[in-house]
Amino acid sequence: MLREPQQERSRTTRRRLIEAAMECFGERGWHGVTVALIAERAGVSRGAAQHHFPTREALVAAAVDLLGEAQLDELRTRAAGLPAGSPRIERVVEMVLNLYTGPMFRAALQLWAVASTDEQLRAVLVPLEARVGREAHRVTVELLGVDEAGAGVRELVQATLDLARGLGLANLLTDDTRRRRQIVREWAATLEARLGETRVS
Amino acid sequence: MLREPQQERSRTTRRRLIEAAMECFGERGWHGVTVALIAERAGVSRGAAQHHFPTREALVAAAVDLLGEAQLDELRTRAAGLPAGSPRIERVVEMVLNLYTGPMFRAALQLWAVASTDEQLRAVLVPLEARVGREAHRVTVELLGVDEAGAGVRELVQATLDLARGLGLANLLTDDTRRRRQIVREWAATLEARLGETRVS
Repeated sequence: MLREPQQERSRTTRRRLIEAAMECFGERGWHGVTVALIAERAGVSRGAAQHHFPTREALVAAAVDLLGEAQLDELRTRAAGLPAGSPRIERVVEMVLNLYTGPMFRAALQLWAVASTDEQLRAVLVPLEARVGREAHRVTVELLGVDEAGAGVRELVQATLDLARGLGLANLLTDDTRRRRQIVREWAATLEARLGETRVS
Repeated sequence: MLREPQQERSRTTRRRLIEAAMECFGERGWHGVTVALIAERAGVSRGAAQHHFPTREALVAAAVDLLGEAQLDELRTRAAGLPAGSPRIERVVEMVLNLYTGPMFRAALQLWAVASTDEQLRAVLVPLEARVGREAHRVTVELLGVDEAGAGVRELVQATLDLARGLGLANLLTDDTRRRRQIVREWAATLEARLGETRVS
């Protein structure tokens, strides 16, 4: 009888710690954050925090995993409501190109910047990023309804995700929403023209 | 007789400090770097360093300016040797999409990450980045030989530069050269198809 609620409590605690960690990294950067600070933000005792996540690296690994998955789930859910055909492409492009404009990208960028000079954090991030990247690619192919066997399709889908990250950077220090909207429109038209022949749905 | 060499020495000192600063920021991040450390790396006395650049922010401003300009000069010089016509587009796309894969982008990213949580650094970076961004856009239009009055041309050039920054991010923690090469090829073909009608040279 006791087991189930305890497991649930444990899951809630993990989730609160992960969310607090990403908030803290986004606001203060890697060097300004300790597990103790994250525990305080999450309203969790320092001991409990260290039981779940002995190091900041462990927290980062769990966070990238959970939040990457959550983001793609949301993308899938929102896309499920979209109509088929041409306006669908523009809506999907809009969603994908907006993927990296939120506070989570800001936090991830702090980690990337640090990882580029910190071997330990890099070793944690590289395989995680590869997996999240592959998943994002798979979901984008699925949402666009394109056939990757078509010439250049794979590269154009990858370019769409690279563009999304570039737009995330451009949105980091200033609000780039207006300019991004115009790029969304043009990119959708471009994809439509290039992928038109190979689209499967 | 004494004036000219002194001015030259002063310019050399500034340049050495700027280059040392970007190396230091790239390797250790913003928080791991002081003006004293930069002076040591540059082989310049701490007093001389502080005479030229009283703060890290002043160094950053000078660095973004000088290095942004140097990068675009190099782009122009290399592009001057390219033939006109179709292979030219692919070579220009290759150059532009490789723009942000060097150690300077790594250093700039450290600064961006910090600026996203540091109001003072942000105030220095935002106007500089806007100017460097406008210049990069102008040079890319010139090198591609396209007419910005054409529908969608402006957005496609901007997307090319945003894509370049996204590819810079993708290259930060791992060597992404091979994948990038395929994206260059596909993006060149795409630009060619979309811009074909409006190209002026």
